[in-house]
Amino acid sequence: MRDRRVSEAVIHRLPKYYRHLQELQARGVERISSGELSVEMGFNASQIRQDFNCFGGFGQQGYGYQVSVLLREIGNILGLNRTYNMAIIGAGNIGKALARYTGFAKEGFIVKAVFDIRPEMIGRVLSGVEVAHVDTLNDYLAENPIDIGVICTQKENAQEIAEKLVQGGVKAIWNFAPIDVEVDGARIENVHLSDSLFVLSYRLANS
Amino acid sequence: MRDRRVSEAVIHRLPKYYRHLQELQARGVERISSGELSVEMGFNASQIRQDFNCFGGFGQQGYGYQVSVLLREIGNILGLNRTYNMAIIGAGNIGKALARYTGFAKEGFIVKAVFDIRPEMIGRVLSGVEVAHVDTLNDYLAENPIDIGVICTQKENAQEIAEKLVQGGVKAIWNFAPIDVEVDGARIENVHLSDSLFVLSYRLANS
Repeated sequence: MRDRRVSEAVIHRLPKYYRHLQELQARGVERISSGELSVEMGFNASQIRQDFNCFGGFGQQGYGYQVSVLLREIGNILGLNRTYNMAIIGAGNIGKALARYTGFAKEGFIVKAVFDIRPEMIGRVLSGVEVAHVDTLNDYLAENPIDIGVICTQKENAQEIAEKLVQGGVKAIWNFAPIDVEVDGARIENVHLSDSLFVLSYRLANS
Repeated sequence: MRDRRVSEAVIHRLPKYYRHLQELQARGVERISSGELSVEMGFNASQIRQDFNCFGGFGQQGYGYQVSVLLREIGNILGLNRTYNMAIIGAGNIGKALARYTGFAKEGFIVKAVFDIRPEMIGRVLSGVEVAHVDTLNDYLAENPIDIGVICTQKENAQEIAEKLVQGGVKAIWNFAPIDVEVDGARIENVHLSDSLFVLSYRLANS
């Protein structure tokens, strides 16, 4: 229900709030006003108050926000109060890096399975998970609930894999293949690393 | 000069146009209207026309855009008509993945040097580049012009490395450490992979 009144822009700002609040907590900050958070994050203070009001507001007028409460509440809104099973498809450069990165597990995103198509990769162990052949993906999904499928294949295979994931009941796709995938029945985030690189070249070329 | 009248939102849409136009060209599409591009990309057609008008417009009324011309022009605006020297600092999971990924070199982003702090990494070769000790970064920058510094260190070291890069004349920083770095004298893109992951968990939790 909540989803319907929250704009895309707000949804995309939530992870940034979460990150900055984690930093504040790590620095021992216990309480912060929207004005201070505004300076910290470079967002407008009234926007911050407005964003938080979408979720019923978390502060008391003139008193600011308690960092630990705000962090927990935003974490809950982001769905970080539970764990998610992830399967990585494609154990190339980026697939391997994601499988080995321990930071996601700390937030509850657990890599349960890794698939690849190359014979030499099958059976290798990445962060405790044995790489399986992608031909076994359907069977795996039939028996193991996966929340998030992480596509790290060549772009030619990405759409097909996305469709297999959805058929297997996966409800969210995190796509790193350099092409947008589109499927019905799953939420998708297409990650394009080159987009931010091109913003840098734009700035270098136009400064 | 051009930079001053182009909004941040337009700048961040340019890489997306570039990507979609590359796809269209790969599919053999020679000409496209803003309406067709709108369907293709999910952007509003009038926004597309408005965006292109920021750069003097690239089409003829009622005639659409020639894909090859539009691709070249947007590539030029993005500064993709030259090469950029990159240095990667931190040869951990993500640093290695970026060093080995060949897609950036195709667009002119050349990894010239890789630095790490761990003795066991020094001297290893990643995509033809020998990993050097981060203590040699200053000396390296004094003799070798680097356009873009790619920070893939632990978050504790990211700010210090960013400052060293700027002191060494680097004008752009692509930061993958999970903390925002801030420096004067360089353009920065902070990449937070977990942001898009948290958007997915938000959608799973709120669907």
